[in-house]
Amino acid sequence: MIRQLTIIGVGLIGGSLARALKQARAVQEVVGCGRDEQHLQRAMALGVIDRYDTDMTRAVAGADMVVLAMPVGAMEAVYRQIAAHLADDAVVTDVGSSKGSVVEAVRQAVGEVPARFVPGHPIAGTEKSGVEASFAELFQQRRVILTPLAHTDAGALARVRAMWQATGALVEEVGVKHHDEVLAATSHLPHLLAFALVDTLATMHDKVEIFHFAAGGFRDFTRIASSDPQMWHDICVNNRSEILAMLDLFMNDLDRLRQAIANNDSDYILEVFQRAKQARDQFSQV
Amino acid sequence: MIRQLTIIGVGLIGGSLARALKQARAVQEVVGCGRDEQHLQRAMALGVIDRYDTDMTRAVAGADMVVLAMPVGAMEAVYRQIAAHLADDAVVTDVGSSKGSVVEAVRQAVGEVPARFVPGHPIAGTEKSGVEASFAELFQQRRVILTPLAHTDAGALARVRAMWQATGALVEEVGVKHHDEVLAATSHLPHLLAFALVDTLATMHDKVEIFHFAAGGFRDFTRIASSDPQMWHDICVNNRSEILAMLDLFMNDLDRLRQAIANNDSDYILEVFQRAKQARDQFSQV
Repeated sequence: MIRQLTIIGVGLIGGSLARALKQARAVQEVVGCGRDEQHLQRAMALGVIDRYDTDMTRAVAGADMVVLAMPVGAMEAVYRQIAAHLADDAVVTDVGSSKGSVVEAVRQAVGEVPARFVPGHPIAGTEKSGVEASFAELFQQRRVILTPLAHTDAGALARVRAMWQATGALVEEVGVKHHDEVLAATSHLPHLLAFALVDTLATMHDKVEIFHFAAGGFRDFTRIASSDPQMWHDICVNNRSEILAMLDLFMNDLDRLRQAIANNDSDYILEVFQRAKQARDQFSQV
Repeated sequence: MIRQLTIIGVGLIGGSLARALKQARAVQEVVGCGRDEQHLQRAMALGVIDRYDTDMTRAVAGADMVVLAMPVGAMEAVYRQIAAHLADDAVVTDVGSSKGSVVEAVRQAVGEVPARFVPGHPIAGTEKSGVEASFAELFQQRRVILTPLAHTDAGALARVRAMWQATGALVEEVGVKHHDEVLAATSHLPHLLAFALVDTLATMHDKVEIFHFAAGGFRDFTRIASSDPQMWHDICVNNRSEILAMLDLFMNDLDRLRQAIANNDSDYILEVFQRAKQARDQFSQV
């Protein structure tokens, strides 16, 4: 049982975590923190948090669990501010989509990554954002990846694991770099492609008609292009090298496919489509 | 009311059309035709067709409506075979995803496109294929695009329009070339990207783990990569020039976005993502 959970950044992820833990009776008190007081008042009104403080140092005081759920770009500044105000038994974790940059930001803030900081990433979300979109079931049967470092405290790790398990999530551990590679492939690159495709169409001269004739497949394919632009900008900046590596791999493959279409190379086209369908069908059964 | 509807190619589209027209009591008799007799027997057993003939010339005899729903690649050969056996009042239409190549195939088959042939394209489908996946509601509220030529018979066009309206579809008319451009943008390119992305991931060394960590957005984004590889190969071949034009436009935009990420050009990245989100949100409200 968490005594006092302080969430910095009460949006879709932070809000859903609070709701899930309350529903599971796994937390006594949830304290919200953020820059926008009206936003925190809405979170109060929604019953997501029990109280709030716009001052980070006061918000973390007394907390045995602190979740950093604000944008990754603010990590260094936030950690620098809260470090000296954490309780002795406090465990800190985050929900950032890239882990290398988070670890580096914490290192920049306090010299070395504290043993009681556990980098984490719930692979869950919708194209919506904000506390209004939060719901207790968001993490059920979803994976949460923790990327502990060699010197991460085993007890702190166990407490973060237990917190996510209480939300119904499936918790796994992988290395920081490996996390960033896998997420670049399965999340960051698809989002980039969806944004880029919709933007290409949106800047064509007959855009209205183009969207008019778009069918169901297009709707599914581009849903993730409705995601928060600022958040995805931050992810591009924070996981840049892994994203560029994946993008280059993909663009190279796409260029080869383009050549095959231009050259009427039916064997190559069919081979790519068949291999993809097989992989997709296999994956969707998991 | 259609007296005898002959469908050549009783798959997802042909089968769903038969089901929808039967449900709407808009057809008296449905005759199926195809090369695979077992497949036609299944269509009989499912109640999708009333009788079948594996011989095309016999199957079209007496039909007042003939729907060509086999792969586009077979268009020329099929049209050449059936042309002399069509009844005087027969109207012929097709369901191909590219219209320029269909018109050209019919021209190659019979010298000039007959006035009673109405090129058509229902923008509907799922990632599944085959008559087993067919259902009567497939076309409800979906667009069906007809691309009549200058000399297309007005009565024939009206009958094809009425047929699709009976399935609950929204029927529109556009030019052949314009159809092919719009579909390259909204359907063919997204399918190519989904196939290419899944194939890139499937050929990476740690593919099992990559798919293991893939989340909901990825699932939606790649659903269309489960579509029929042969059909999409045919579309690539048949709408090649429009697809290559769209692909070049997109790859150019993607390359610019790649440069922006490499150069930390936040303004450009944000601009693309914001414009895309705005277009996607606007489109999804339509």
